[in-house]
Amino acid sequence: MYNVAVIGAAGYVGAELVRVLLAHPDFKLAAISSNSEAGKTLAQVYPYFTERADLTFVDHETALAETDTKLDLVFLPVPHTAAMDLVPAILEKGISVVDVSADFRLHDAASYEAWYGTPHTAPDLLAKAVYGLPEAFRSELKVLAAKRASQQEPALVAAPGCYPTASTLAALPVLKAGLFNSNDVVVINAISGISGAGKIPTDTTHFCSVNENVNAYGVAFHRHTPEIAQTFSHLAERNVAVQFTPHIAPLSRGMVSTVTLRLSKKAAAEATPENIQKLYEDQYAEEAFVHVMPPGTMPRSSSVIYSNYAHVGVAYDASTNMVVASCTIDNLAKGAAAQSVQCANIIFNLNETTGLKK
Amino acid sequence: MYNVAVIGAAGYVGAELVRVLLAHPDFKLAAISSNSEAGKTLAQVYPYFTERADLTFVDHETALAETDTKLDLVFLPVPHTAAMDLVPAILEKGISVVDVSADFRLHDAASYEAWYGTPHTAPDLLAKAVYGLPEAFRSELKVLAAKRASQQEPALVAAPGCYPTASTLAALPVLKAGLFNSNDVVVINAISGISGAGKIPTDTTHFCSVNENVNAYGVAFHRHTPEIAQTFSHLAERNVAVQFTPHIAPLSRGMVSTVTLRLSKKAAAEATPENIQKLYEDQYAEEAFVHVMPPGTMPRSSSVIYSNYAHVGVAYDASTNMVVASCTIDNLAKGAAAQSVQCANIIFNLNETTGLKK
Amino acid sequence: MYNVAVIGAAGYVGAELVRVLLAHPDFKLAAISSNSEAGKTLAQVYPYFTERADLTFVDHETALAETDTKLDLVFLPVPHTAAMDLVPAILEKGISVVDVSADFRLHDAASYEAWYGTPHTAPDLLAKAVYGLPEAFRSELKVLAAKRASQQEPALVAAPGCYPTASTLAALPVLKAGLFNSNDVVVINAISGISGAGKIPTDTTHFCSVNENVNAYGVAFHRHTPEIAQTFSHLAERNVAVQFTPHIAPLSRGMVSTVTLRLSKKAAAEATPENIQKLYEDQYAEEAFVHVMPPGTMPRSSSVIYSNYAHVGVAYDASTNMVVASCTIDNLAKGAAAQSVQCANIIFNLNETTGLKK
Amino acid sequence: MYNVAVIGAAGYVGAELVRVLLAHPDFKLAAISSNSEAGKTLAQVYPYFTERADLTFVDHETALAETDTKLDLVFLPVPHTAAMDLVPAILEKGISVVDVSADFRLHDAASYEAWYGTPHTAPDLLAKAVYGLPEAFRSELKVLAAKRASQQEPALVAAPGCYPTASTLAALPVLKAGLFNSNDVVVINAISGISGAGKIPTDTTHFCSVNENVNAYGVAFHRHTPEIAQTFSHLAERNVAVQFTPHIAPLSRGMVSTVTLRLSKKAAAEATPENIQKLYEDQYAEEAFVHVMPPGTMPRSSSVIYSNYAHVGVAYDASTNMVVASCTIDNLAKGAAAQSVQCANIIFNLNETTGLKK
Repeated sequence: MYNVAVIGAAGYVGAELVRVLLAHPDFKLAAISSNSEAGKTLAQVYPYFTERADLTFVDHETALAETDTKLDLVFLPVPHTAAMDLVPAILEKGISVVDVSADFRLHDAASYEAWYGTPHTAPDLLAKAVYGLPEAFRSELKVLAAKRASQQEPALVAAPGCYPTASTLAALPVLKAGLFNSNDVVVINAISGISGAGKIPTDTTHFCSVNENVNAYGVAFHRHTPEIAQTFSHLAERNVAVQFTPHIAPLSRGMVSTVTLRLSKKAAAEATPENIQKLYEDQYAEEAFVHVMPPGTMPRSSSVIYSNYAHVGVAYDASTNMVVASCTIDNLAKGAAAQSVQCANIIFNLNETTGLKK
Repeated sequence: MYNVAVIGAAGYVGAELVRVLLAHPDFKLAAISSNSEAGKTLAQVYPYFTERADLTFVDHETALAETDTKLDLVFLPVPHTAAMDLVPAILEKGISVVDVSADFRLHDAASYEAWYGTPHTAPDLLAKAVYGLPEAFRSELKVLAAKRASQQEPALVAAPGCYPTASTLAALPVLKAGLFNSNDVVVINAISGISGAGKIPTDTTHFCSVNENVNAYGVAFHRHTPEIAQTFSHLAERNVAVQFTPHIAPLSRGMVSTVTLRLSKKAAAEATPENIQKLYEDQYAEEAFVHVMPPGTMPRSSSVIYSNYAHVGVAYDASTNMVVASCTIDNLAKGAAAQSVQCANIIFNLNETTGLKK
Repeated sequence: MYNVAVIGAAGYVGAELVRVLLAHPDFKLAAISSNSEAGKTLAQVYPYFTERADLTFVDHETALAETDTKLDLVFLPVPHTAAMDLVPAILEKGISVVDVSADFRLHDAASYEAWYGTPHTAPDLLAKAVYGLPEAFRSELKVLAAKRASQQEPALVAAPGCYPTASTLAALPVLKAGLFNSNDVVVINAISGISGAGKIPTDTTHFCSVNENVNAYGVAFHRHTPEIAQTFSHLAERNVAVQFTPHIAPLSRGMVSTVTLRLSKKAAAEATPENIQKLYEDQYAEEAFVHVMPPGTMPRSSSVIYSNYAHVGVAYDASTNMVVASCTIDNLAKGAAAQSVQCANIIFNLNETTGLKK
Repeated sequence: MYNVAVIGAAGYVGAELVRVLLAHPDFKLAAISSNSEAGKTLAQVYPYFTERADLTFVDHETALAETDTKLDLVFLPVPHTAAMDLVPAILEKGISVVDVSADFRLHDAASYEAWYGTPHTAPDLLAKAVYGLPEAFRSELKVLAAKRASQQEPALVAAPGCYPTASTLAALPVLKAGLFNSNDVVVINAISGISGAGKIPTDTTHFCSVNENVNAYGVAFHRHTPEIAQTFSHLAERNVAVQFTPHIAPLSRGMVSTVTLRLSKKAAAEATPENIQKLYEDQYAEEAFVHVMPPGTMPRSSSVIYSNYAHVGVAYDASTNMVVASCTIDNLAKGAAAQSVQCANIIFNLNETTGLKK
């Protein structure tokens, strides 16, 4: 058993991490923290946990202090900037970190500053962080695991954003196979449930604002854009431009990302709906959490709710040379909390699916 | 006062037509028909109309029969194929038609057969029908109006689909200005409320299926694709390819269509967020029903619910040379019933906004 | 035309009042006020009003100041305590008031203090205020109207709460007919959409809290309890006890109140489902806004949305001697804004349905 | 391991039973049947089960036939009348049955005929069936378990309806303690998610019908009424009349039942909010699945979703001598499937919480 803490456990992602970790056989939840809810029980903040868990929030400092429990791992579902303030000290204690904030996702401190409007205060750690999308970066995560095990070097994982997770899983087979026409732009349109906007009540999250409404937002400036472009470029092994447009719809949890990729002339000459379908099926054949839908069908977000699963459907339109692929995830689960645990399983050399198959 | 009938009034679009026409000062609702609900009152089928209307469904034949009421105009919110069976006889009686089905939208009978899987039985009328999107085809509609008035020739209007309406209003300024890079494909992603799937209960429309779910559907083969491509090509005055992907979300009414258009190199050299915004504002300055959102904001579907309004937001991303424009409408109103009345106003030389400004 | 102002127009009830008044032929909306949103346009706060209204919020003081516009009437959809601070000065200016807060609903200052936890600061006005439920207090409202017209005495109407409106319309026929067993307690269970909780975002109004949830709240201490008991006692002409339990459900607008009344032995001896149905139909035969459902059917809240209508269904259970009656209204419309306008129509000797029949 | 089958597994309750049984350590799911979906995989009918289960529907006959698998237990989530046709033959084979239909809930065949409009075809089994609400009939269930174990007599459990489950758990402490004023009528108002109406699409379950609507239904004639009265009378040890009014609200799963009970004069003389709260806490102190809310708070249905938990809140109103108690459950779980498994655990002498604590 490894001792773990969730720092920032009172938000939606934090609570989902608690839910997943309570059922995990190899991680023992030693502490949950929230500076704003410290002193309250988990069930007071989330009545769902009544009789399911007997936990009380402490503040971040208390959770991280050396007490009789030596922590092995900390999950950090905190707002951006809060993580980069906390991570250096945690790593120095020899505790591994899965950061669920945005602070260690971009490799480039200048890009971070450009998109987040504030300098990065721990830029030297950016190169050490591995992007925690196992289906794309499993070997890198395993290097971290080996270092942790052999050299006692704590690992730093930057868990991806929800939109980048769904978008990457939708586009990955085409990008990795080098089929994308690199002069083109990958167009990504996604729809998210409102839990992605967080637990703090605002005009935007009021029921009467969300209900019976859909709208685009953050067009051309959503912060997940550079994160997606970075991953897509890595997968394609050249620079890939993306046009990412998120939308909000009246649901609590769940997300779909639909990506549209034009194939290169060479690729299009050989592409058929059947072999594109096969490309996806082959790519994900060994993946425990990614399911490719049968030909002609597109995935539903409700099928993956409360789980680490991602469902991917794909179509090829020969009249436009375009692949349209759609991926559904639970934005709080595979899009945040459950995927963080998937990464933690890898880092601690556990079976990757431990505690997540249900 | 003109006498009008709604043939197929028991569906959602039909009921919305009734709602709009009841408040219209110049159209008198002489008959509502439904072959399946004939004999029932409107309020029995739609309790909303209790005390608002005292109307009873008759069957189609009865509604169209020559009685003491001479009809001037018939609205046809019927399934495709039903309209092309009915329209020739109605026109022969000298009655104008606004067909809200798909039967007269495509100019080309072969394309109709390819997409709808059945031969067109009134192909000679395709050339006579005008596509009823006033913001794009107002002059053509006015020609119909003039012929109706001077030569007693009944008009045939093909009211657009909901997705094509929202998509066209989003893309029109760029296409008309010739800014679109014609080697590219316009990528359209749209989200609709479930009323678009019709009133007949199915697995797809069950509350438990729609609620807490989003998904893409009809990818690469939705029947609104050729309709959108036809209109876009007309506006751009050359062949335009589109990749249209609709999604369903848990709302009853409302729709957003987000279009992504890459500008030609020449256009991109001069484009700025400000002049693209101005292009949209100028295009729609005189339009009574299209509102361009302030810079940096995207429209909400809830703002246009139950109305003939369309709200359009636009962004220009200089890093990709792409215009992203998002249009929200009420799929049953501007996307079907209210827009049909807007067309009827034009055909009968009424003020275009009569009965629709609220 | 009478000049009217809405003081506190930025809340949900205020915005609904604006919506109704914009379509009213005899009331001219001279000012809308909000101390928190002063300076913003209506469309900035509620995008729905884009192109529908060109109004800007001023602060309360500005709206009420003597300018070139002499106000005839002020609507006060403000929080309780705010109204009793404002009303005396407004009346002194000779301006009539429809108070939509709770401040002038209870006749008894001691009861107000007991339920609202604060002394009433204008107790002498309590006796002057008429409870604005026309179906129960029309003659009293007409006395106010006569005084306003003949003696230039400004009227003070206390518009009822939403739950009391629906509950009263459900119970009124039995209570007025003296059929209720006065040793018993009227049991009232109601369900409201979340707009009743107001526009200010809170944990309670967050989409993720409301969605996929139902719960009771305020059991045995909801402030609408004494208001309901006061009206029921007035109608029955003796003391009537009520047990009122409100619930919240995942909808924005709409409400149902289901009341359960045990008939006295004498009444039960003669009661049948048929004559109880007739009692309701007769009671409401002349009411423009109350519709009694056909036997065996219960009303839907969606049928009355955005309107001043109330739908009432009634059943009589001979095995328990109980009448169960269910009334649906739009909590913001008949439950607040539209009913306030109905009262204003009476006060100004207009046709009671002016601007409200749609 | 015991071999179990779910007969009628394609409905919502059936699918929920499958979900629960897949995670159960002591029941092996040997067969799932559906006459209408036979031949399809579970994931085809419910995409949620993709990668979670590899099961295929067979028809009822095949599932029940003696093959290489000897069944120990059959769950019967079938429509009423279907169960009484199947149960005698199943019991004759020595297989125990948890019937989730309504067929064996009422003790009295005449009452069954009166409420269900059809004669009971297996009336001799009514006396053998035990009502499967463990919190009220645990000792009776244990007698069945003992007979099953010692005498090889198969058990027949009639799993309660969802409304009766929630209503009984809300009222039980008062009824059992003899505090209820027996001349009075227990008033029950409940709200259910639409999954209670079943999977077959109808006008009633269409998203556009359910969304943004609440309404009462089945007033004075809902079939759960005699079932509730029978249980209440058993608990109070004398005849108890109930007035049960169900409502529908726009959610998929979840239910609240609010019961209002007037205390006898004697009981009221001693009642306080504190000791009524204590009565509830004491009653349920040893119950694994019933949680009593803290004083002054009412339960939320979302807290118990997907679980066998019931949350109960209680208030005492000294001004009316009334206890108001509100119970939330998941209508498909504690209200049907999970509670059936709870009963099965008892019948097979397993720990009552096996497979249900999560």
